[in-house]
Amino acid sequence: MTNPNIPFERSEYQQRLAKTRAAMADAGLDALFVTDPSNQAWLAGYDGWSFYVHQGVIIPRDGDPIWWGRHMDMMGARRTCWMPQDRLLGYGDHYVQSTDRHPMQDLAGHLRALGLERARIGVEMENYYYSAKAHAVLTAALPEATLAEATALVNWQRLTKSDAELGFMRKAARITDKVIQTAIERAAPGVRKNDLVADILHAGVTGVEGDWGDYPAIVPLTPSGLDATAAHLTWDGTPMRQGEATFFELSGCYRRYHAPLSRTVFLGTPSEEMLRIEAAQIEGIAAGIEAARAGNRTCDIANAFMAVMAKHGIERSGRMGYPVGLSYPPDWGERTASIRSEDTTVLQPGMVFHFMPALWMDTWGLETTETLLIRDTGAAEPLCSIERKLFVKG
Amino acid sequence: MTNPNIPFERSEYQQRLAKTRAAMADAGLDALFVTDPSNQAWLAGYDGWSFYVHQGVIIPRDGDPIWWGRHMDMMGARRTCWMPQDRLLGYGDHYVQSTDRHPMQDLAGHLRALGLERARIGVEMENYYYSAKAHAVLTAALPEATLAEATALVNWQRLTKSDAELGFMRKAARITDKVIQTAIERAAPGVRKNDLVADILHAGVTGVEGDWGDYPAIVPLTPSGLDATAAHLTWDGTPMRQGEATFFELSGCYRRYHAPLSRTVFLGTPSEEMLRIEAAQIEGIAAGIEAARAGNRTCDIANAFMAVMAKHGIERSGRMGYPVGLSYPPDWGERTASIRSEDTTVLQPGMVFHFMPALWMDTWGLETTETLLIRDTGAAEPLCSIERKLFVKG
Repeated sequence: MTNPNIPFERSEYQQRLAKTRAAMADAGLDALFVTDPSNQAWLAGYDGWSFYVHQGVIIPRDGDPIWWGRHMDMMGARRTCWMPQDRLLGYGDHYVQSTDRHPMQDLAGHLRALGLERARIGVEMENYYYSAKAHAVLTAALPEATLAEATALVNWQRLTKSDAELGFMRKAARITDKVIQTAIERAAPGVRKNDLVADILHAGVTGVEGDWGDYPAIVPLTPSGLDATAAHLTWDGTPMRQGEATFFELSGCYRRYHAPLSRTVFLGTPSEEMLRIEAAQIEGIAAGIEAARAGNRTCDIANAFMAVMAKHGIERSGRMGYPVGLSYPPDWGERTASIRSEDTTVLQPGMVFHFMPALWMDTWGLETTETLLIRDTGAAEPLCSIERKLFVKG
Repeated sequence: MTNPNIPFERSEYQQRLAKTRAAMADAGLDALFVTDPSNQAWLAGYDGWSFYVHQGVIIPRDGDPIWWGRHMDMMGARRTCWMPQDRLLGYGDHYVQSTDRHPMQDLAGHLRALGLERARIGVEMENYYYSAKAHAVLTAALPEATLAEATALVNWQRLTKSDAELGFMRKAARITDKVIQTAIERAAPGVRKNDLVADILHAGVTGVEGDWGDYPAIVPLTPSGLDATAAHLTWDGTPMRQGEATFFELSGCYRRYHAPLSRTVFLGTPSEEMLRIEAAQIEGIAAGIEAARAGNRTCDIANAFMAVMAKHGIERSGRMGYPVGLSYPPDWGERTASIRSEDTTVLQPGMVFHFMPALWMDTWGLETTETLLIRDTGAAEPLCSIERKLFVKG
């Protein structure tokens, strides 16, 4: 019987494993220890809010992946991983947030039992779920092994999406359309921001028709007025005010897959300056999308946008986007390529980016963004379908 | 003018700083670099969903804390930190998720400029937001400094809550009551789990009267039937079924403060076995609460619960709770003391624990938990007010 908790066919997991093992071979790794929850889910299927304790997936040279985590969470692994039960390993609760013991001591024992005592083992040095302490303890417990930097080794394999993944992302995009539409419709002077966010969350998790909504890896970012000069404020209970712009950076989520989008709503009459800059931003986004085609590079998207900005006398540099797909908190980006002028990743069909050339000014902010699918030919396809403009409500 | 984004009085932040500096002195630290977002908010006020990039708060021996993060997020720091603007430091976007540069190189420059080149600087080795790579880069960039393990140094200062914090937690508890009540009322055969979660999220963020709801640090955990044998599954679109138990582990959140609670709902007629074990669990929780009093230790709570379980022939060991308060994803626990038999933390008035002696059985799970405030005298006060029982709905 197929386990309904496992989102993809077995063959898809085997393909992912094969891609990962090819990258491991290139990096000269005997094994890989994956701590990024997105990578764990992508390779093994594991899904649960247990990443706040140490856990991971071991990819040996041969055989199925091995899920390792808190004993209590093995039941969740049984319910969500595609591997047989003998590929699940659990550690006792006395390792959890203890000052005397560390779960990596338990992991080291398993790695030794797998014959990896002197192996070259890849670890994700730059990951939220692989702490400085975890690395120190694992290093000390495996003195003859080499723990090699393998940050984003798996993430790079995730850059080009399979058809099945794109199917999930299109469902996520329909949910995104719904939540952005909800935000635009509900925004009005006097509406408390948290009441609006409550409606956004409700719309997102309800989903669209049979496609239920999962939790996005980032909560709604919905700042207004001066708060919108900051990129990452969330919400509070202040009523929305006439004369202020509010941006909504939101994503639907379908079985952990995302398709983020931002739109800005202005209540009242925006200034000439804001309208001028908005027109430039829309023109720049169109130029970026034109440049987002197979064979071009990530920097071409950023440069196309910045060229339009320069023409209009607007300064905007920095990072303007990142790949998206499967993710867990705290980030829905994949942390590999970036859309910025120094990044030269070659675009290929099936890659998906959140192109977000937002503009944060001295006294207001304007976010209009798109999730873009790189196609076989032609310009990228925006996955969402909300009109690209500043929404002005009287 | 008081900044409405800053939740506490200046004097409260000064007290927190004084407590932290006393602990730093005990640990022989010249400075402390705090990466835990909860600690950053507790000390500096900073609030934003930007912890997915490197940021932190530097506590020098003297003077105000210094917030350091991505340049883009300095605007958020201006909006939410209590310190003057000259105590905010930003790094450029070319450091963000780059393979060539690391933000810790920028931080090292600031620490040198502060005269800390040869100092003993505390770092939170075991934290989601201090990666193995961050530590390696900072160590290499400050070869003459000593980076000393200071995990949870600040968290321990947070264990006993101020009256102002308890006020926030009581508001959070009212929101928790509302979300648990929503879950109990809405649970029925045929209701899709995600639709129920949508209502839970809506209720939580709407809040109670004027007290708006913030995002909890953990999303709703709402597994049914066999999935409830696992501790940390979230939800899907499956309709609820007659004959299954569903547990709801939820928290209201008021300005980042939590008061988690779990209740279980059974649709139909529970087995004699489940009712017997539920009665034992309720009896055990009452015994635990009786033991949760100033002067006793955390282990006394666990032991009181386990003694009742043993009397009824039920095996339950492991961790049964943790302190709660201010938190950011991925954990609403404070990661200091634990309610477990080997933990001997002495209970003091003002401490607050999520006492969660949940029972995960072979084919079902039962979670009934309380957030407990340790009082000056007498048994602990449960902050929420939902009846403590298995909720059976026909």
